Amino acid sequence: MAHINDSYLKLKAGYLFPEIGRRIKAFTDANPDAQVIRLGIGDITLPLAPAVLKAFHEGVDDLAAGPTFHGYGPEQGYEWLSQIIIDKAYRPLGVDLKSSEIFISDGSKCDSANILDIFALDNKVAICDPVYPVYNDTNVMIGRTGEADEKGYYAGIHYMPCTAANNFTPALPDQQVDIIYLCYPNNPTGAVATREDLRRWVDYARSNGAVILFDAAYEAFITEDHIPHSIYEIDGARECAIEFRSFSKTAGFTGVRCGLTVVPEQLMGITKNGEKYSFNKLWNRRQTTKFNGVSYPVQKAAAAVYSGEGWPQVKSMIDYYMENARIIREGLTAAGITCYGGVNAPYIWLETPQGMTSWDFFDKLLNECHVVGTPGSGFGPSGEGYFRLSAFGNRDNVSKAVKLIEQQWGK
Amino acid sequence: MAHINDSYLKLKAGYLFPEIGRRIKAFTDANPDAQVIRLGIGDITLPLAPAVLKAFHEGVDDLAAGPTFHGYGPEQGYEWLSQIIIDKAYRPLGVDLKSSEIFISDGSKCDSANILDIFALDNKVAICDPVYPVYNDTNVMIGRTGEADEKGYYAGIHYMPCTAANNFTPALPDQQVDIIYLCYPNNPTGAVATREDLRRWVDYARSNGAVILFDAAYEAFITEDHIPHSIYEIDGARECAIEFRSFSKTAGFTGVRCGLTVVPEQLMGITKNGEKYSFNKLWNRRQTTKFNGVSYPVQKAAAAVYSGEGWPQVKSMIDYYMENARIIREGLTAAGITCYGGVNAPYIWLETPQGMTSWDFFDKLLNECHVVGTPGSGFGPSGEGYFRLSAFGNRDNVSKAVKLIEQQWGK
Repeated sequence: MAHINDSYLKLKAGYLFPEIGRRIKAFTDANPDAQVIRLGIGDITLPLAPAVLKAFHEGVDDLAAGPTFHGYGPEQGYEWLSQIIIDKAYRPLGVDLKSSEIFISDGSKCDSANILDIFALDNKVAICDPVYPVYNDTNVMIGRTGEADEKGYYAGIHYMPCTAANNFTPALPDQQVDIIYLCYPNNPTGAVATREDLRRWVDYARSNGAVILFDAAYEAFITEDHIPHSIYEIDGARECAIEFRSFSKTAGFTGVRCGLTVVPEQLMGITKNGEKYSFNKLWNRRQTTKFNGVSYPVQKAAAAVYSGEGWPQVKSMIDYYMENARIIREGLTAAGITCYGGVNAPYIWLETPQGMTSWDFFDKLLNECHVVGTPGSGFGPSGEGYFRLSAFGNRDNVSKAVKLIEQQWGK
Repeated sequence: MAHINDSYLKLKAGYLFPEIGRRIKAFTDANPDAQVIRLGIGDITLPLAPAVLKAFHEGVDDLAAGPTFHGYGPEQGYEWLSQIIIDKAYRPLGVDLKSSEIFISDGSKCDSANILDIFALDNKVAICDPVYPVYNDTNVMIGRTGEADEKGYYAGIHYMPCTAANNFTPALPDQQVDIIYLCYPNNPTGAVATREDLRRWVDYARSNGAVILFDAAYEAFITEDHIPHSIYEIDGARECAIEFRSFSKTAGFTGVRCGLTVVPEQLMGITKNGEKYSFNKLWNRRQTTKFNGVSYPVQKAAAAVYSGEGWPQVKSMIDYYMENARIIREGLTAAGITCYGGVNAPYIWLETPQGMTSWDFFDKLLNECHVVGTPGSGFGPSGEGYFRLSAFGNRDNVSKAVKLIEQQWGK
């Protein structure tokens, strides 16, 4: 008989965002006239930048005639795109990469999930709490954990609580861990890591032979100059870190699908026999065998993000969202709600008023204000009592949502 | 210390097509003026159909303005696309599916690789030999096998040889297997399965509780009416089969990236406790957690494949390739080379002349005729002494290649 992967049965609930979708649908089915303002799932709202649209169309046009037609591309992405990323996104940070270290993909959700393929199951994993649920759930699904306890912690994972008490900055593990997920700017808390914070992690990883999985999906939203955009700005990180980046939020590609993963050639793991082996080679084998590259016109569109014409357009979209973040942050603060993030990240992480649970606040916000956010507990047990609002809405909706929340809960 | 997934070290060689790419590059670097005719990797050469291009552009245009903008879509694909596939690709076969049973993806390579996520490691797997290398390699990578023997067979896999001796039709396993990979029309042999062939497999699977992973990526190339296009044309297949389909070859989407997987709601696996559990639910959880949907404009383009305007255009491309297949098949046969396939499949599977090994013939064909094909042994030990030519070239190149082969080896 065909046996299922029983590890899936350990998962406590549906993946967070589909669950939110179900609750919104139930509400809108019951209230068909309600105008729901969605500041939940973190989806962007501005259209693509004109230069990106132009390049996207040109990419499609290339597929209209033999001489410019592109069939299978390299599974790792086209070198012209990797080179642009090296030149425009990394070199200005003082980070030099080779194109063989860059793997273009259809998004960093997929990559940060699939990366586990190349690691042995016996590695000890450290995950922040709260955090983007993909890190935790994919470790459960692949069979690295035991069952969840009543709080929602899975046996075998080292969780690192991040709350107001530690300024949302996790402590270094007090035990040996082998794989460390870090996400900066953080989803969901909006916290950032300073150079010194990252230095501590790189030092820990190097002295323990650990690998840092560094999710930099929101790096474009950093506004403060002293905050690093890439873990490779820290000396020694090339020997201990894989970095994920995404065009999803940076350039509005949530429906277009493009991201990238950097696996430096110096990054080594250990075989069962104690020999060193290159993670770059493993990821290359994984991608060439299990992936077939990103849509060619999408790669053309992604390349335009960093063009002379494209970047100022993209940057103005980022500024627009960060102005939303300011409006939310300042509006909520004025209403007496304690909130974090929103300065170097498009997320505002707020303490739920009146000690409500995260899901109670979700339901109340949806039912009374018709505003959708994301319950903090959906990101992990230490997210209980917090709530995430995204700055990706349009300005009118964001302002309206802030006013409705002020009316409901402000003093 | 971070341990690597040691199973990758069991893999005998690089993934087949990158290896071919390396040899071509070495040849063209040494012979920059040589005009290489590529009938190897199975990449298509005709541009996209006009109706598909139009829809693709419209999809991009939708991303240019707020009201038509599409961000994150359903991980399973848009329902309008699933519904078109149900109506146009399945209902005419007498197969009724629900949209919840269809999962749109970025290609059937990814799906046929990732599907292993939802199965327990202790399942016994049966794989045809020769076959598309992804099935075998992904089982090695996930840790289901032991080491390879000197022939290239990995311990723990049940291989089913397919050679001229059994008319490329594998025998039913003489032991209990739980997962069976079938690919019809077959890559690489071009063989097809009759209704009776599939009936035998469905009966075997149902009486053994096995799951058939049915790769129908080439179903659009079937020209004979009595050959089934989907395993679901066989009664009972919904209880025992997952089917993969692809727009890659059907509509020239190798660089565009779109495919789909059907997981019927009736398909059940067994938990460790012996309870039945739905594979559809598992795959849905896998996709919602580890995948983020297909590029919206790509899905618009895919929908146009089956439109009233699009399908005749797409069909004429398929006819063009199948005329290539006829030219190759008949030309080689006239030159005294024994060949198979090419009637219901875009691949011609030939016996290498003079008893050469597959790779010797590859190198000779490349060096003397400047024609690239695929060595049969790259698809498995039983492919040794065979060679695959693809019908996806342009007509001039195909005719030229056939003439060059005739001159070199014809009597």
